[in-house]
Amino acid sequence: MIKVMIPSFNFASIPHIIFSPGAITQLFDIITRFGKIVLFIIGEKSLKKSGKWSEIIKNLEINSINYYYVSVSGEPSPTLVDTIVNQYRDKKPDLVVGIGGGSVTDAGKAISAMMLKKDSIKNYLEGVGTKKHDGYKIPYIAIPTTSGTGSEATKNAVISEIGSGGFKKSLRHDNLIPNYAIIDPELIISCPPSVTAACGMDAFTQLLEAYTSNKSNPMTDSLAYGGMKYMKDAIIPACTTGSSDVSVRSSMAYGSLISGICLANAGLGIIHGLASPIGGFFEIPHGVVCGTLLAESTKMNIEKLKELGTSGKLALQKYAYVGALFDINKSFDTTKIDYYCSLLIETLERWTSDLKIDLLGKHGIEEDDIEKIVNSAGLKNNSVLLTKEDIRKIVGNRI
Amino acid sequence: MIKVMIPSFNFASIPHIIFSPGAITQLFDIITRFGKIVLFIIGEKSLKKSGKWSEIIKNLEINSINYYYVSVSGEPSPTLVDTIVNQYRDKKPDLVVGIGGGSVTDAGKAISAMMLKKDSIKNYLEGVGTKKHDGYKIPYIAIPTTSGTGSEATKNAVISEIGSGGFKKSLRHDNLIPNYAIIDPELIISCPPSVTAACGMDAFTQLLEAYTSNKSNPMTDSLAYGGMKYMKDAIIPACTTGSSDVSVRSSMAYGSLISGICLANAGLGIIHGLASPIGGFFEIPHGVVCGTLLAESTKMNIEKLKELGTSGKLALQKYAYVGALFDINKSFDTTKIDYYCSLLIETLERWTSDLKIDLLGKHGIEEDDIEKIVNSAGLKNNSVLLTKEDIRKIVGNRI
Repeated sequence: MIKVMIPSFNFASIPHIIFSPGAITQLFDIITRFGKIVLFIIGEKSLKKSGKWSEIIKNLEINSINYYYVSVSGEPSPTLVDTIVNQYRDKKPDLVVGIGGGSVTDAGKAISAMMLKKDSIKNYLEGVGTKKHDGYKIPYIAIPTTSGTGSEATKNAVISEIGSGGFKKSLRHDNLIPNYAIIDPELIISCPPSVTAACGMDAFTQLLEAYTSNKSNPMTDSLAYGGMKYMKDAIIPACTTGSSDVSVRSSMAYGSLISGICLANAGLGIIHGLASPIGGFFEIPHGVVCGTLLAESTKMNIEKLKELGTSGKLALQKYAYVGALFDINKSFDTTKIDYYCSLLIETLERWTSDLKIDLLGKHGIEEDDIEKIVNSAGLKNNSVLLTKEDIRKIVGNRI
Repeated sequence: MIKVMIPSFNFASIPHIIFSPGAITQLFDIITRFGKIVLFIIGEKSLKKSGKWSEIIKNLEINSINYYYVSVSGEPSPTLVDTIVNQYRDKKPDLVVGIGGGSVTDAGKAISAMMLKKDSIKNYLEGVGTKKHDGYKIPYIAIPTTSGTGSEATKNAVISEIGSGGFKKSLRHDNLIPNYAIIDPELIISCPPSVTAACGMDAFTQLLEAYTSNKSNPMTDSLAYGGMKYMKDAIIPACTTGSSDVSVRSSMAYGSLISGICLANAGLGIIHGLASPIGGFFEIPHGVVCGTLLAESTKMNIEKLKELGTSGKLALQKYAYVGALFDINKSFDTTKIDYYCSLLIETLERWTSDLKIDLLGKHGIEEDDIEKIVNSAGLKNNSVLLTKEDIRKIVGNRI
């Protein structure tokens, strides 16, 4: 018998998940379990354009639910959250419902968390404020319309202040995990190819980083691996011929949901350690940052793990397991670790090119910015230790 | 691309999980998050014998936590639950902590659920009473000392009345999932071999039945498969040479925890459909019923799925995946489905014999009882439809 010791781990609660094409129709029944006054946070475009928003309004009226709604765009800033909270606190909403991409669902999460506080969200952001959030909030239901951040299942909301003194930091507490996550793949069909591509690369990054994280555990391992298995065949079709196919969108939505659960419980790696400063300093979509760094970072991690020899073996094998998903033989041969690792890197490079993921340079980032980015980057729970030189190389290759 | 459609599914919240050898020391900090008055429900023997209970009491006193405790034995009856609730309601406990095997953790769950009610639990049991539980309860922390039922992660408490008019029915609500599950594999080391064997077989049954359930979903699939992967190498050592080995006990505890999460979200099959009436009519440990029926039922399910041809293919492949876990080649060859299925049946038969799992006859069940059992059995979410004749055969072969 090979002795396997399960590492000590905590696994936070997850939202009550409803996963189904057409699941949005269950929203109204769920709302009434929490109360009669809802504050909706929604995106600016696709929900309204698709006609889904007017359907929702009609149903709210049929069900005699009082509602307010705010449209938001871009990644939420402290000012945005504070303004909305101050504006709606006196309306005493019983719950918040966020319908949109990661920025919208994060904004909704932050607003539900700040509704019972009297001061600015800035005071509670990690690495920015001095206070710790205590988890008291009003209930929150998250409904994603992109398959990307997995915010519908995470315990944090990412808040950004863009500019030279900018930041991208989290409001975080176990209790901020949404009460319900309603995953309706039909809502995601209207997501355009470029957004689907960037979000999809973000979700896959989250799955791979959580799976190979030094804080991963058997639960996140099982789930993350399963998530990648579904996403691997769907990511290209979702951006091309299969964009209106509910089964393809379901696989993407599932991968994204699972990526949120896994990152919340296993943490992330260098790609997200770089995404924080890059997203704080420059106006560039989070999914593009992750997508553009995915293949390059994976290549570097694998290279460093190989150099480590025996002590890198277990983590290397995990990259190989993922690579083997792309092998037509559908089996795993322990003597072919190098081959599977190369297959993984090649596949991620192909995705980056097929999905036309921008270089960082396209968004105004130059060679001269590398040092600043590298100095602010964190390793998070990366599978292997990287030096500044290694990180410089990753970013440099994607300018 | 092969098109895979993810089925619609709900996934209830799970407890906040703390999994670690020595995790029991975190209990006192967690208790203070909920209040100052605790009602402990504990077993009658091993916890006290191992010295762990006196350690816990010492720590409660150091932390100025007021506590009451009740020792219970055997599967909880309506009378037991009602009596304890009536006795402690006026003490106004802030939370209940259950430490013990499945019967004890189920008793604790039921007591926390009934503390805010004024009438008997009988009124709320599925198929017995006419009321539905509304989910209001006082917080509950479950700490297993066996690796069996996974009750620490389920939303139901099984309540039994033994005798000719007996039953074994559930109090069930999504909100009855324990607030915390503290899994400390060190607490399980004192569990004797025969109990470890029966509980282990129960947990593996739950994983296999949830994995092959007609209500399974990608999340339960990933988790259940991972749970079986850990358990498969641990079940024999846990009952023999590895009983004091924390890594072996960790694998068992993990499998059991995951089995609870999976059964709560995917349901179970014929084995548990038979365990309800058998456990209601006769005094026989639940783990022994599951263990003794495991190989025989799996054999029958596989046989019936083969007869179905194409429509049984997907479910049959799942049994094959599990069988392949026992193949030394550690790969999966789609042309060898029959071989993997046979390997699974053989392994389960070997476990049944190596672990000395009793025949039903050993517990007073006779040929004449078969009809009564079969007539009261339910198929639950069994992988394939079985006739009464099929079920009769399963039971008959284990008398």
